[in-house]
Amino acid sequence: MRQTVEKFGYVEYGASILEPTELYKAKTGEEIINEQTYSFKDRGDRDVTLRPEMTPTVARMIAHKKRELSFPLRWYSIPNLFRYEKPQKGRLREHWQLNVDLFGIENLNAEIEIITIASEIMEAFGAKDTDFEIRINSRKNLQQIIESKIKKTEFYTKAIKLLDKKDKMSEEDFTKLWSEISDESPDFEQNQPQNIKELIEKLNKQDINNVIYDPILARGFDYYTDIVFEIYDTNKENPRALFGGGRYNDLLDIFGAEKVPAIGFGMGDVTIGDFLKTRNLIPEYKPTATLYIAHAEGTDFETINNIAKKIRDIGVNTIVDITDKKVSDQIKRASKENVLYSLTIGEKEIQSGIFSLKNMQTGEMKELQEKELFNELRSI
Amino acid sequence: MRQTVEKFGYVEYGASILEPTELYKAKTGEEIINEQTYSFKDRGDRDVTLRPEMTPTVARMIAHKKRELSFPLRWYSIPNLFRYEKPQKGRLREHWQLNVDLFGIENLNAEIEIITIASEIMEAFGAKDTDFEIRINSRKNLQQIIESKIKKTEFYTKAIKLLDKKDKMSEEDFTKLWSEISDESPDFEQNQPQNIKELIEKLNKQDINNVIYDPILARGFDYYTDIVFEIYDTNKENPRALFGGGRYNDLLDIFGAEKVPAIGFGMGDVTIGDFLKTRNLIPEYKPTATLYIAHAEGTDFETINNIAKKIRDIGVNTIVDITDKKVSDQIKRASKENVLYSLTIGEKEIQSGIFSLKNMQTGEMKELQEKELFNELRSI
Repeated sequence: MRQTVEKFGYVEYGASILEPTELYKAKTGEEIINEQTYSFKDRGDRDVTLRPEMTPTVARMIAHKKRELSFPLRWYSIPNLFRYEKPQKGRLREHWQLNVDLFGIENLNAEIEIITIASEIMEAFGAKDTDFEIRINSRKNLQQIIESKIKKTEFYTKAIKLLDKKDKMSEEDFTKLWSEISDESPDFEQNQPQNIKELIEKLNKQDINNVIYDPILARGFDYYTDIVFEIYDTNKENPRALFGGGRYNDLLDIFGAEKVPAIGFGMGDVTIGDFLKTRNLIPEYKPTATLYIAHAEGTDFETINNIAKKIRDIGVNTIVDITDKKVSDQIKRASKENVLYSLTIGEKEIQSGIFSLKNMQTGEMKELQEKELFNELRSI
Repeated sequence: MRQTVEKFGYVEYGASILEPTELYKAKTGEEIINEQTYSFKDRGDRDVTLRPEMTPTVARMIAHKKRELSFPLRWYSIPNLFRYEKPQKGRLREHWQLNVDLFGIENLNAEIEIITIASEIMEAFGAKDTDFEIRINSRKNLQQIIESKIKKTEFYTKAIKLLDKKDKMSEEDFTKLWSEISDESPDFEQNQPQNIKELIEKLNKQDINNVIYDPILARGFDYYTDIVFEIYDTNKENPRALFGGGRYNDLLDIFGAEKVPAIGFGMGDVTIGDFLKTRNLIPEYKPTATLYIAHAEGTDFETINNIAKKIRDIGVNTIVDITDKKVSDQIKRASKENVLYSLTIGEKEIQSGIFSLKNMQTGEMKELQEKELFNELRSI
């Protein structure tokens, strides 16, 4: 995730996990804070919350420093987030989430860049474009349609939340709940809004072809202002959005800054982890150490540590076995550590200056003089 | 920090910041939890605490998985920690701390490895061995001396805490407080304990010469069992320990596991940051992007994005300017981003296939065909 977003020049930022509870009230405009947060009073009698999402935090940060910053800004972070809800498939009380945001661009190039990044992260994980699809909608357009259908203006938020959950409920349940807020049919199929059409065309030209228009796509958060998107697994047995985002041009206003156009997405580790597991795409564990140095009985550790230092200094991560175990047990341990090479050092090696480097995968041994040893290690 | 500890084969671990409050009661054996923590009840009526240090967490983790793990274990983490105390120089309510721990080694090689790592991190930051000194003591030995001096056994913890703060108070204040718990002089100078002598000798042989025996060095935490060490700034105007650690062989017992010998240290970002600032050693900010692509008015973004993709794919982090600004303003922005190179693409470049790459530091321009451009970029 890091590699892909940095390819696009995004810069990492950080923030405290502890936020004033007010931050989330301000955002939603509601007086009651979401029941699902970890909120408490600190010893200074302040209402504080463990952040449940990152967008309000980054919006606040940028609003407060707006005059010192120069736009556009490309920022990313991989924070941990807390929600107090029943742990279930795809939702844990604590999870980590990549957040990628672009501030200061009003035009559609921003949507293209952000969706391209989302798509390239999927590809970097090894997903093929038949494994996932990118659903796009205009929240603005959806709003107009909803407003033309609902019985009362106050039902708007209810309607958005219902549409957001449509995929997770039965057709029957949906129809029943919909009839409570609208007398009209829940039919949203319309002509594609102009910006959606243009966006899809341009993404296609950049070889991103798994994009579709989804007229009921809503996304839960209140702050989206126009284009929203979600990445879906094409496996129909997993009908949940993997992750998503959208444009939120008005969020910085709340913090007293002038308008700053903004767009971004969040990608949680649990949902994407589940997706990668079912597709067998979880990256392989890469051991930290490359070389393991074992020692013959009674060998002077100062000499071994000094050799190890020289090897580490040429960039080879090295474990020195400092136990009192037999050489054979030390080598067993080396293989448990998954190192690529091992080296056994005793008085004989120190006196002769000839070392035997063992390739732990093939079992091959190479007899090398100190200089050759270093050349060999440098070439790893 | 990461690079240095990984050179020694240490593996990164993570843990939730939220811990059962009990974890800290268990460790100290006291019934009241430290007044300085962020502790609260969650919505499930559990007493939880934002971790004030990492050692109890890692000890608990290892104790719970002891049978599945094979020792020795070399683990590190860079967690954020919370303490509710008055923010002051060197102490913030939230800070980040490198934690390096070695589990399963009883012998003195473990002390050597851990202190070597601490010293090498300082050197990796650019500190010379005259900039800092490593003070070492045996907590076991100190305990014997204290016990021979104090009026009542219960004063032991008080004495340790007082010694730990000695450097931060006047001689007078110290003498007064000491006289409350002891009738004897606060003189701890004695023969060096054997293990301290051996440790210092061996470190010297590995060219770590800034190590001294400090007979009153205590370290605040209760869980240390023998050797403790602290790194001090040699600048006498900064008489605080920069960081430190020690051996804590008994900590895992609390969690029901058999004894596991353990040693480690923690290095906080605030104190070390202050040290680096005064020594002018703060690492330079490295921009994420290497290349900035500007566009002539009216140029087709699809073409530019496709070129950018190819450049990113060879490993060059690239920002594409997607604003509607003039070329000169785009280049100004490139220089603000601190990129090394910029490239302006317009119809002319697309038609001719000749690109001019600008070195943003020297101002030098190179006219290159597409293939040459990629070779040039690959060589960065």
